[in-house]
Amino acid sequence: MGERASEGEAREWGATAWRILTAVRERSPLIQCITNYVSMDLMANTLLAAGASPAMLHCLQEIPDFTPHAQALCINVGTLSPDWIPSMKTAAELATRLGKPWVLDPVAASASEFRLRACLDLVQLKPVVLRGNASEILALSNASLGPSKGVDSSHRSVDAVEAAKSLAQGSGSVIAVSGAVDIITDGQRVVGVKNGVAMLQKITAAGCAVTALIAAFVAVDPLHALEATASALSIFGLAAEMGMDMARGPASLRIHLIDSLHGLDQAAVFSRVSITSMS
Amino acid sequence: MGERASEGEAREWGATAWRILTAVRERSPLIQCITNYVSMDLMANTLLAAGASPAMLHCLQEIPDFTPHAQALCINVGTLSPDWIPSMKTAAELATRLGKPWVLDPVAASASEFRLRACLDLVQLKPVVLRGNASEILALSNASLGPSKGVDSSHRSVDAVEAAKSLAQGSGSVIAVSGAVDIITDGQRVVGVKNGVAMLQKITAAGCAVTALIAAFVAVDPLHALEATASALSIFGLAAEMGMDMARGPASLRIHLIDSLHGLDQAAVFSRVSITSMS
Amino acid sequence: MGERASEGEAREWGATAWRILTAVRERSPLIQCITNYVSMDLMANTLLAAGASPAMLHCLQEIPDFTPHAQALCINVGTLSPDWIPSMKTAAELATRLGKPWVLDPVAASASEFRLRACLDLVQLKPVVLRGNASEILALSNASLGPSKGVDSSHRSVDAVEAAKSLAQGSGSVIAVSGAVDIITDGQRVVGVKNGVAMLQKITAAGCAVTALIAAFVAVDPLHALEATASALSIFGLAAEMGMDMARGPASLRIHLIDSLHGLDQAAVFSRVSITSMS
Repeated sequence: MGERASEGEAREWGATAWRILTAVRERSPLIQCITNYVSMDLMANTLLAAGASPAMLHCLQEIPDFTPHAQALCINVGTLSPDWIPSMKTAAELATRLGKPWVLDPVAASASEFRLRACLDLVQLKPVVLRGNASEILALSNASLGPSKGVDSSHRSVDAVEAAKSLAQGSGSVIAVSGAVDIITDGQRVVGVKNGVAMLQKITAAGCAVTALIAAFVAVDPLHALEATASALSIFGLAAEMGMDMARGPASLRIHLIDSLHGLDQAAVFSRVSITSMS
Repeated sequence: MGERASEGEAREWGATAWRILTAVRERSPLIQCITNYVSMDLMANTLLAAGASPAMLHCLQEIPDFTPHAQALCINVGTLSPDWIPSMKTAAELATRLGKPWVLDPVAASASEFRLRACLDLVQLKPVVLRGNASEILALSNASLGPSKGVDSSHRSVDAVEAAKSLAQGSGSVIAVSGAVDIITDGQRVVGVKNGVAMLQKITAAGCAVTALIAAFVAVDPLHALEATASALSIFGLAAEMGMDMARGPASLRIHLIDSLHGLDQAAVFSRVSITSMS
Repeated sequence: MGERASEGEAREWGATAWRILTAVRERSPLIQCITNYVSMDLMANTLLAAGASPAMLHCLQEIPDFTPHAQALCINVGTLSPDWIPSMKTAAELATRLGKPWVLDPVAASASEFRLRACLDLVQLKPVVLRGNASEILALSNASLGPSKGVDSSHRSVDAVEAAKSLAQGSGSVIAVSGAVDIITDGQRVVGVKNGVAMLQKITAAGCAVTALIAAFVAVDPLHALEATASALSIFGLAAEMGMDMARGPASLRIHLIDSLHGLDQAAVFSRVSITSMS
């Protein structure tokens, strides 16, 4: 994999990320979130700061009326229990039928058989994008494609890349693997995002929030899901970098990240977005 | 509508708002909140910063024991699902029977038939105050009074004023419509509140939080629900104005707003509360 | 009770608190939290800031797979409803059976008969530590040991100390009573913690967060539950003291507290931990 971006490629990615962020700000897409209790506040505030319009609405009875008005749907299994699954499946199926993009965050996919099964069922419902960490992607890839290798032996990022490609090919979804370098693949192309700071791992629901941001980016550019996903990850990471300049720890980082996301300008995006083709 | 307040009227409103805020701080009313998942944290912290005592307690089995000890009740349908409705109705009925004020926030009332029906049922249970944005008030007014005009054509604030007056007359509740200028009416009198900042719209659950603050204000002055409601909206908006002086974006605004609400002093309240009679 | 610590005792407690905090940072224990909706965000961020690994996982179906991987369990009844109780009991029983420490926070234990009964049932399942405020400890002590005196007459801290000792002796749990001075007892020894600031009472879920921190401390030193509990209370209180130096109100205190907890160094811990033996 050649990881060194040409200057021209870097400029193009900066322009792409700025274009999509601007579209989110201008169109303010309505993003329905069926998510875990922990992340609702940060997820809604992240969407608002980016210019989107969040709707934290998960009631099964409301989905037929409401989901058709959303521009995208974000499903996150963080605090899953059985009574949430019908809403998730119904909304995902309806979104797919209506041609609306939906995005899946398989939080802690391997925490239990129950959860792994729920995640695999949701993958079958064709999310446009699926974002997780390396462990989650490896668990889903192994479970859906057969245990060619154990999860424990598979945590090197090179393995996560291969697992992500396999999962993308098998599912038809764009797969994003968060990490020191985020990996995004549609099964053929592989793109890396280097924006972000290590302290994000000390903020609960930061991953959930970036998945919601991906939903907003895909909502305004559904035909380029890989580009929208890489852009959202880069923009969120860049906001974290800028927030880190003012932060004294994880709690103030969270505040400054959201403030920075809200105020992000073209100059910062063009000069600091760090996305490169890796294949 | 004569919107220009005399200096004398402005001074009186400042004194009223300060008197009620002081009563909240001194008596620390217990406010039971049956609210959505997104807003619980901000709502509880807003009540604490204002000097009230929040209880985020929604369990049906606990209402007969607990609700009699509360000084007011706040019901918010933000993340509604069917299993929450019995608690909401039981608590509202009990509060009304015991002569305790309760306040309704009909979040996204028109998002679905299910939600609109639940909101209309709750309106029947006689909230002392109902606070929403223009769309929510229009939806409830049209649905409960018949569709004299479509919702889509009704978003000018002058229409919201008429809808609010009609809803107040039909329901017996004080109706508050949040906006650039907040409108409060009991069906006869109309009062406007100009405090606040535009960036509040970028903070999730800010509306929910101000509804809880209204509950605290009405708790200590239940015989003057219109004055208490206008005062709460003004105090919250003033705290936002003062927070805005220190904020760099929506996340830091949220922090500084709560800090400012906690520290608000008489001089600021007397000089900056902006409430005027509009009829 | 002799409350004056010798210099030697103070140094020892500082060393103990630092040793346990360091163990949390190094081993990053996985702490399963079955907690209320209000506290999930602050609790997870507190655990992350301290170096632990939070898992907000409460689904009954997942407990057999997941709880065996946790190093400790934190159960909090803040927004209790009947459907949560089977998860709480199943997880507590499994933790006890597997020899894993679990910690109980009986929020508002006396708010209703339903809640008091649930708390008493959980106490029967042998939490290693139970932390509450004076009212909660008195309510549990009176209910489980018989109403030797009414709750209302019992709010002096000296009564809370005796109630805590009785409850500890009856239950076998270490009992912590939060207050201006926190009291920790195993039924024989009594230890006081003076760290903390009054404004913590203006931050929702601060008590819940410190209970989770106790779970993390007990996870890495399960054989010294009293020392671990006192250390967690002191470290949290110290982080609040350091945060208070930068805070302008309760919302910024919450931010600076978490930042301070994350950055806490040996010098601050050794010089400012204030724990003393009281018996």
